[in-house]
Amino acid sequence: MVGSLPSFVRVVEVGARDGLQNEPTTVPTEVKVRFIEMLADASLPMVEATAFVSPKWVPQLADAEHVLSQLRRREGVRYPVLVPNLKGLERALQAGATEVAVFTAASESFCQRNLNRSIEQSLHEYEMVVREAKAAGCWVRGYISTALMCPYEGEILPDAVKPIVERLLAMGVDEVSLGDTIGAAVPTQVARLTEALLPILPPQRFAYHFHNTYGTALANVLAALQYGIFIFDSSAGGLGGCPFAPGASGNLATEDLLYMLHGMGIQTGVDLEGVVAAARFILGHLQRATPPSSYLRARSGRD
Amino acid sequence: MVGSLPSFVRVVEVGARDGLQNEPTTVPTEVKVRFIEMLADASLPMVEATAFVSPKWVPQLADAEHVLSQLRRREGVRYPVLVPNLKGLERALQAGATEVAVFTAASESFCQRNLNRSIEQSLHEYEMVVREAKAAGCWVRGYISTALMCPYEGEILPDAVKPIVERLLAMGVDEVSLGDTIGAAVPTQVARLTEALLPILPPQRFAYHFHNTYGTALANVLAALQYGIFIFDSSAGGLGGCPFAPGASGNLATEDLLYMLHGMGIQTGVDLEGVVAAARFILGHLQRATPPSSYLRARSGRD
Repeated sequence: MVGSLPSFVRVVEVGARDGLQNEPTTVPTEVKVRFIEMLADASLPMVEATAFVSPKWVPQLADAEHVLSQLRRREGVRYPVLVPNLKGLERALQAGATEVAVFTAASESFCQRNLNRSIEQSLHEYEMVVREAKAAGCWVRGYISTALMCPYEGEILPDAVKPIVERLLAMGVDEVSLGDTIGAAVPTQVARLTEALLPILPPQRFAYHFHNTYGTALANVLAALQYGIFIFDSSAGGLGGCPFAPGASGNLATEDLLYMLHGMGIQTGVDLEGVVAAARFILGHLQRATPPSSYLRARSGRD
Repeated sequence: MVGSLPSFVRVVEVGARDGLQNEPTTVPTEVKVRFIEMLADASLPMVEATAFVSPKWVPQLADAEHVLSQLRRREGVRYPVLVPNLKGLERALQAGATEVAVFTAASESFCQRNLNRSIEQSLHEYEMVVREAKAAGCWVRGYISTALMCPYEGEILPDAVKPIVERLLAMGVDEVSLGDTIGAAVPTQVARLTEALLPILPPQRFAYHFHNTYGTALANVLAALQYGIFIFDSSAGGLGGCPFAPGASGNLATEDLLYMLHGMGIQTGVDLEGVVAAARFILGHLQRATPPSSYLRARSGRD
């Protein structure tokens, strides 16, 4: 293989938050909790649980407190929750969160239209949020959406991303996840962004979050692996639609990611069968127009 | 980007043959002809047209003579047809074929069960077929199925593939296409096979034929590109089921391949919009349970 591949990948499961938040079917709290528990039982080391955002914005996650309090936590597993501001952080801490995530975007248009504030406003807010979170002993993740492609601005260049990464790191964020939010990036873009960021963001803190709208997610993972990147976000069942491409598939599916990584001899510690069980469990509770992952389709004839 | 990428890729369109042969809906000859013409009009340099195999084996392609004779040929475009034996070659030449393809497999079990003869028997037959074809002035392609993974034997190692490539080259075959017939290979396997074959098979004669059953096709393309491979087979609309995974997607979709290559700045000379039109045309004539390509799904919300 060209380049040197990492021997281990840490998979960050985002199905219960990024996956569910765009699903039109309201999922009962107990189903979400069971889904998260199944994911943790599959030995996923990090299972994003919910978001403490306004129920007006994301009705699907209005039960954030209940999800977190009802969850039977598995030792060694981290359960990050999204917090958009200080109020969200307070709710999250109250509910027992020990890992939180803040989120901004690299595209000003996307940030304004989807997060309802400017990039600068979001970073300003997060200065306080991250300080408070760290003071409370939390591990903190920072998401940067549209880090490669934007539905309004097209290609986003590394120069737009780098200062945001620097700001998040200066705040004390433990890990930065760079999102191809609309799933339209290609491997050369991933390579360029990785090359630009590695001098300031070491692989230990560098995560990619790919969506699979154009089918390029695994190719993008491969490009990143070749630079030693070893943290990838994915969603069981490929949950998570793209509001900008209604018929498209969503997040990179965890089972597709595991299939490729394990086939390449890269360890994850995750039980693929357990993830498949969790994916099938949650898909049974959704009315989905979009197709499930390649892996589940490939398996459909055999099981 | 790690590795050096080719600046140009030659796309070999296989939708009208490999794509249609497993479709249960019988497609009228005039629709096939129109499909092939639309593909050629999209500036695809090579459009596989049909196969001169027994109608008992592949009823969908029983009209091979009619397809070839009714086709309005576009200058500069090659229209290879599959020939399993001397009788098939005679039929193909009679119908005006100037490019033919022979096909064997790297897995003995697959060859026996799907091509009804041993690898050695197929190669023995092709010694004569290729000699006759070259004598008639034909350009000849050689397919090797299950060059990476076999539904019966699992992983196929490069050592099993190499002697078959050598035999085909010794016969005078102009190009060898290595198939991941069940769409289950991962990039490290592609890298290993490419490294093993490049000393005997230069990029000018080296094609890959990926299916996308597990969603790894574009990642496999990326791995091959990094070794300078620049000939890839694909199928408009992602046509072509995998009999071993009924719900799975088929061949790597031409539009998905073009999306990634063009996004990476790699030229193909192919008009993506023309391919989309051809894909939609043929999908309109099929009753498909399997989903179309990522690109078409991504576009479905916009068009």
